[in-house]
Amino acid sequence: MDKFMIDSQQQIDLKTFDPNDTNGLSKDSIKEEYSNLQKEFAHLQDIFYASKKFALLIVLQGIDCSGKDGTTRKLLNDINPNGFRVESFKEPTQEELGHDYLWRIHKSVPQKGFITVFNRSYYEDVLVTRVHGLIDDNTAFNRFNEINMFEKFLVNNNTIIIKFFLHISKDFQKKKLEDRLEIPEKHWKFSASDLTERKSWDKYQQYYEDLLCNCSTDEAPWNIVPSNKRWFRDYVVLKTTVDVLNNLNLKYPDIDENIKELINKVKESN
Amino acid sequence: MDKFMIDSQQQIDLKTFDPNDTNGLSKDSIKEEYSNLQKEFAHLQDIFYASKKFALLIVLQGIDCSGKDGTTRKLLNDINPNGFRVESFKEPTQEELGHDYLWRIHKSVPQKGFITVFNRSYYEDVLVTRVHGLIDDNTAFNRFNEINMFEKFLVNNNTIIIKFFLHISKDFQKKKLEDRLEIPEKHWKFSASDLTERKSWDKYQQYYEDLLCNCSTDEAPWNIVPSNKRWFRDYVVLKTTVDVLNNLNLKYPDIDENIKELINKVKESN
Repeated sequence: MDKFMIDSQQQIDLKTFDPNDTNGLSKDSIKEEYSNLQKEFAHLQDIFYASKKFALLIVLQGIDCSGKDGTTRKLLNDINPNGFRVESFKEPTQEELGHDYLWRIHKSVPQKGFITVFNRSYYEDVLVTRVHGLIDDNTAFNRFNEINMFEKFLVNNNTIIIKFFLHISKDFQKKKLEDRLEIPEKHWKFSASDLTERKSWDKYQQYYEDLLCNCSTDEAPWNIVPSNKRWFRDYVVLKTTVDVLNNLNLKYPDIDENIKELINKVKESN
Repeated sequence: MDKFMIDSQQQIDLKTFDPNDTNGLSKDSIKEEYSNLQKEFAHLQDIFYASKKFALLIVLQGIDCSGKDGTTRKLLNDINPNGFRVESFKEPTQEELGHDYLWRIHKSVPQKGFITVFNRSYYEDVLVTRVHGLIDDNTAFNRFNEINMFEKFLVNNNTIIIKFFLHISKDFQKKKLEDRLEIPEKHWKFSASDLTERKSWDKYQQYYEDLLCNCSTDEAPWNIVPSNKRWFRDYVVLKTTVDVLNNLNLKYPDIDENIKELINKVKESN
C-alpha cells in the first residue's frame, strides 16, 4: 500500500494519479483477502481497545461524491461500535467560529483504546474556506504549518493518525450527482450547493494538491486513494489501517493477580 | 414483543421473569426473520437519518456480564456508523460530580436523525450509587420522578426512548466470570470489583425492580429482555427497535426544486 502514501512534502500533481487505478488487481482477486482483512481488523481492534495504549485517528477527505460516508461504513462494518466513533464536521457554529479552527477538533480526538473517523476534518479550514475566499493563500500556508504541529503533538501523545484522500474524476462526480437526482431514495443526498461547488472543481484540485504536499509529514503522511472503483478504495483503506495496527504489535493486557485464586473465588461465590 | 414491555408502573418481581425464556422459539426458527430484521433496520435507519425528524435514544442496562457490549455490537452491526454513536458512562469526573447527575447525560443525547446507545446510563445514579450507600432510598425515589420528567421532556422534544434491561441469572453471571478468567484473551474484561459487586446481587435485583417499576412510563417504558440466551436477547432488542422505527412511518424527504431541471444542469456541467 506504500504506493499510495506520499513521501514527505513532495510536490503533487493530481492529474498524474489515476482515479481508476486498481494496481493491476480485480475485484474477484482480492475477495478472499478482503474478507480476511475484515476479520483481522476486528481482532486487532479488540486488542487495541483492550490495551488502551494508543488512540487512532482516521482522517477522510475528498471532494463531494468521493464516497466518504460509504468508506466509513465499509471500514467500520463488523468492528465493535463500543470502541469507535464517527465525527462529521459541518459548518462551524457561532461559538466554534469564536475560537481558533482547531478548538472544536481537539475536543473530538479519540481517547486511548478508541478509533475516531473524521468524516471531513480541519483540512476543510485550508480548503473550502480558501475556495470561498474566506482565507487568503498566506493564511492557508501558515495553517499548513500549524496543522503539522498539531498532528505532531497528537502523535507525540500516543495518537496514531492515518489520512486518506479519496481521489475521484470529474466525470465520476457527474455520474454520482445524476444518480442522486435519478433515484428518489437518494434525493435527500442532493444539495443545490453540489452544483455550485462543482464549478470550483479545479480550485479544489489545486488546493488539495497544496495540502497533500505540505501536510504529508513523517508523523502523518497522506494516502491518495484511487476511488472511482469502490471495491479498490475500500480495500486500500482497510489494508492500510490493518497494516498500521499490525505494526503496533499490541497484546492483550494481563491480570496481575493469581488467576487460579481468582477462579476459585468465582467458583466459591454463591 | 409487547410481552417484555412493562405496563406503566406495575410492581416488578424479577424472580417471576425467566432469564432463559425464549418465548417458545428456537435459534433456528428465527434465523431468517432475524436476517430480514437486520436489513429492515438498515433501511429504516437510512430513512431516519435522511428525514432528521426524530432522535432515537436506546438505553441499555443490566448487571455485570449481562452482555451490554455484545448487544450494542449485534444491534449496530451493519447499520451506518455515520448515523449512530455509543456512549459509555463510566465513573463521573470531578467536574461531572460538581454538576447534577443529568448534566453529563444531557450533553450526550442524540440529535435528530441520529441513534445513540447508552451503554449504562443515568440509571446507574439510582442503582450503583444506592448499592454503595452514596444515596439513600428517599433520594432514589425522588430521582425516579426526576428521571421520568427528564425523559418526558426529551420525548416531547422529538427524542424517542427505548429502554432495555438485560435480565440474566446469577448462575449465568458466574459462568461468564469464569470465562473471563479461563480465556486469556478475555482477561482484560475481568476486574476485581466484579467479585465484590456480585456479593451485592440481591440488592442490585431489588433496586432494579424499583427502577423498572417506577420509571416505566407511557413515554418511555422498560423492556425486560431475557438474556441468558444471546440469540434471543439480540432478537428481542432488534425486533423491538425495528417495530418502534416502523411505527414512525417516516419517508425520505424530497427536493423542492424541479428534478428534471436539476438533472439537466448536472448533465450540462463540464
